[in-house]
Amino acid sequence: MFRLPRLVPRLRGVRYTSSTPRFPCVEAHAARQSRLASFVSSPQHPNSSPSGPEPPYARPNPTSYTVFHSSTPLPLTYHPDPLPTFDIAYETWGTLSPAKDNVILLHTGLSASSHAASTPANPTEGWWEKFIGPGKPLDTNNYFVVCTNVLGGCYGSTGPSSIEPETGVPYATRFPIISIFDMVRAQFRLLDHFGVDKLYASVGCSMGAMQSLAAGWLHPERVGKVVSISGTARSSPSSVAMRFAQRSVLMADPNWNNGFYYDALPPHTGMKLARQIATITYRSGPEWDARFGRQTRPPPSDASPDSPHVPALCPDFLIETYLDHQGEQFCLKYDANSHIYISKAMDLFDMTRPALQALRLPEAAALVEPEADASARPHSTSHSKSHPPPTNPPAHLPALAQGLAPLAQTPTLVLGVQSDILFTVEQQREVVDALRMAGNERVVYYELGGVWGHDTFLLDVLNVGGAIRGFLS
Amino acid sequence: MFRLPRLVPRLRGVRYTSSTPRFPCVEAHAARQSRLASFVSSPQHPNSSPSGPEPPYARPNPTSYTVFHSSTPLPLTYHPDPLPTFDIAYETWGTLSPAKDNVILLHTGLSASSHAASTPANPTEGWWEKFIGPGKPLDTNNYFVVCTNVLGGCYGSTGPSSIEPETGVPYATRFPIISIFDMVRAQFRLLDHFGVDKLYASVGCSMGAMQSLAAGWLHPERVGKVVSISGTARSSPSSVAMRFAQRSVLMADPNWNNGFYYDALPPHTGMKLARQIATITYRSGPEWDARFGRQTRPPPSDASPDSPHVPALCPDFLIETYLDHQGEQFCLKYDANSHIYISKAMDLFDMTRPALQALRLPEAAALVEPEADASARPHSTSHSKSHPPPTNPPAHLPALAQGLAPLAQTPTLVLGVQSDILFTVEQQREVVDALRMAGNERVVYYELGGVWGHDTFLLDVLNVGGAIRGFLS
Repeated sequence: MFRLPRLVPRLRGVRYTSSTPRFPCVEAHAARQSRLASFVSSPQHPNSSPSGPEPPYARPNPTSYTVFHSSTPLPLTYHPDPLPTFDIAYETWGTLSPAKDNVILLHTGLSASSHAASTPANPTEGWWEKFIGPGKPLDTNNYFVVCTNVLGGCYGSTGPSSIEPETGVPYATRFPIISIFDMVRAQFRLLDHFGVDKLYASVGCSMGAMQSLAAGWLHPERVGKVVSISGTARSSPSSVAMRFAQRSVLMADPNWNNGFYYDALPPHTGMKLARQIATITYRSGPEWDARFGRQTRPPPSDASPDSPHVPALCPDFLIETYLDHQGEQFCLKYDANSHIYISKAMDLFDMTRPALQALRLPEAAALVEPEADASARPHSTSHSKSHPPPTNPPAHLPALAQGLAPLAQTPTLVLGVQSDILFTVEQQREVVDALRMAGNERVVYYELGGVWGHDTFLLDVLNVGGAIRGFLS
Repeated sequence: MFRLPRLVPRLRGVRYTSSTPRFPCVEAHAARQSRLASFVSSPQHPNSSPSGPEPPYARPNPTSYTVFHSSTPLPLTYHPDPLPTFDIAYETWGTLSPAKDNVILLHTGLSASSHAASTPANPTEGWWEKFIGPGKPLDTNNYFVVCTNVLGGCYGSTGPSSIEPETGVPYATRFPIISIFDMVRAQFRLLDHFGVDKLYASVGCSMGAMQSLAAGWLHPERVGKVVSISGTARSSPSSVAMRFAQRSVLMADPNWNNGFYYDALPPHTGMKLARQIATITYRSGPEWDARFGRQTRPPPSDASPDSPHVPALCPDFLIETYLDHQGEQFCLKYDANSHIYISKAMDLFDMTRPALQALRLPEAAALVEPEADASARPHSTSHSKSHPPPTNPPAHLPALAQGLAPLAQTPTLVLGVQSDILFTVEQQREVVDALRMAGNERVVYYELGGVWGHDTFLLDVLNVGGAIRGFLS
């Protein structure tokens, strides 16, 4: 509801406005809040109405994906107790070969579901529709493509919004903090279930690239090739900062209620604001200049065509209405706690040797000692005339090379985008240099131009798709 | 207060935590809210306690600055009615020469006060302390330096938190939307009051650089030299996006109350979140990597020295505690409405000819017609072997050159920083190219390296100060 200012009982005669100032953006938000509140208090809540305004993750639709249930406890990176049971939602495209040697495990970014491409069970477009299918870069004439919703997510896999078996209510923030490695371990349980010993390739973009590297690191013998697109092997403080800003606005929403909101109004305001911030990091300034420039929203329908644009404090420029719309579209589509937990897992991702050894990861114990490594395999081994050592390496590069040692024999495609402000091109070069320094002589690296920033992997079928096709074949 | 989850009456026996999860950051925030609420309801509110937690702008201290009051209405760029009266707070350093020809008008960034350097009346360090004084870049042995709090601000100049004479209560969001040009017009009223016909120079960084260019544009005959550091002549959509995100979190704070909060709790949560986002844009990723890397907060005092870091959803990495602290420090220091109005004025700043002509600016009417301009003064005039035309000019460059035509005879220093993500180096080059294209043959341009990003102008006395000193002398 529109609240009247408290100290200004009568506003007639005030110079600048004929009435109390109005804020359509604030009113629209209040209206959504009130629509949602009336739904939450209605008898249908939470899951009975198929078309209500409740978040889609609150009405799982297991007919559009398959759920793999594991009753074997999953060890966790940051918690002494394993997760006792868990579900992983997945979809597949193509046909598993009799030798089960044509599997591509596709990892998702932060908020994507397993629905990477349309299927007979769910014909809506997937998030990588143009990359998966017969003759496409992930060619389903050759490969059996598997995509899962990550552990911690809200689209069918176990996450904070899932019912905790012991209590019968959602975990909420009693869910343990998880890591990228935990997500990958859960996916390998699914591969075990399929009877797949070795992946043809592990492929991922953004957070999916972290998982892709983690898969090759955890199971060097089970991963044939690794594709890492616009990812990183060590989250930078500037990307942590952008995700921190998103978590902060979410956790400041009173509806977040320390994560216990599943029987009440979700923190839709915080989610909208978080998505606005995220969206800023997904594209680039040059793209916005080309796409929106300094154009403003269209004038109201009752305005005369000649009347000049009157600026407002609510969204005014097209870049603002775009961000507002992106936030609005997303705020009820994704679970706030999943956003918090998964973005935190991204922040925690660091494949430098000391960071890995500080974790509860048995695999890290096998990492070569720096001294032994230095004498046994000089760092310059993998550098050649065509791949010279970096001229200005970051201080952590040797530690990253030591951490990535298990990937030394795995053919790896790294692809980065120069306009990406979230996973910068410096981070892509760092992965390449560290892998080469670790002795990997089969690293392919492409750097793309263009203005699409981090989102390039969703848009540039020709260049991104072409690189993948060439590397996989 | 800490709220118990509603659907989980008993939590004993739950696996992952021995009790309900705790969020120290949420509790700290609730504690601040409650401290502030008890103060607001106390009899001292709003302005009687000198040491209470209320914002400093709510207790103006006119002994530390001088207030110029104008009773002559100020015309506004975006409103048909002028502002009937207004105050401008200012401070000065050095001595006005008998000919009144040694005045440097220093413009501030978004949130700075007139206190650019210490004075006898206010010995605390100013925001540009190292740049102003005897023998310093703005050498008070030679120059009389004047710095004002901008119109729309909250440190003594008229803004949304000021009492509206007609109603006796703060303007709040009944304050008119203002422009960078309006700010400069108000400053020139102060110069008129001093009897200063012509500035030796107009100097500004960030939003101050916008004002500096606007001053030279509004009054070419009254501005001897222009210094524009890390500014722009046309706000880019990506900088609008970053400021939009800040306004959005502010306006989503229920305490904002459509801007009418001056008798209640200020939107301190929104301000804290807005400042966190702003802070991200002020530095650079490389600086954060060098300064914080992936270090985490120190372990609790009762933790054993060997215990591994246990990640948390509250601020965890030093980059997070830094941003949290920056937001915390700022959230009661600055008026939320001033932040909204002034950041909006930055967004609206666009010196391309069509944009200027769409405003209520009599000065824009004199801009040369593009056709006449093209024939009368070929664009290539000012380009030379040492200053060739840009190879890849943005589409709006000719329009910007036409808009900047009034500055064609004014010696101008433009300085940009390659690591600045808010006012990118491309925007600096654009100002330079447009000025040269407009026929200005006295444009000096420096581009700085380093990792300090947008904040370089506050930190790099050697390079920024040196450039200013050389240009002014």
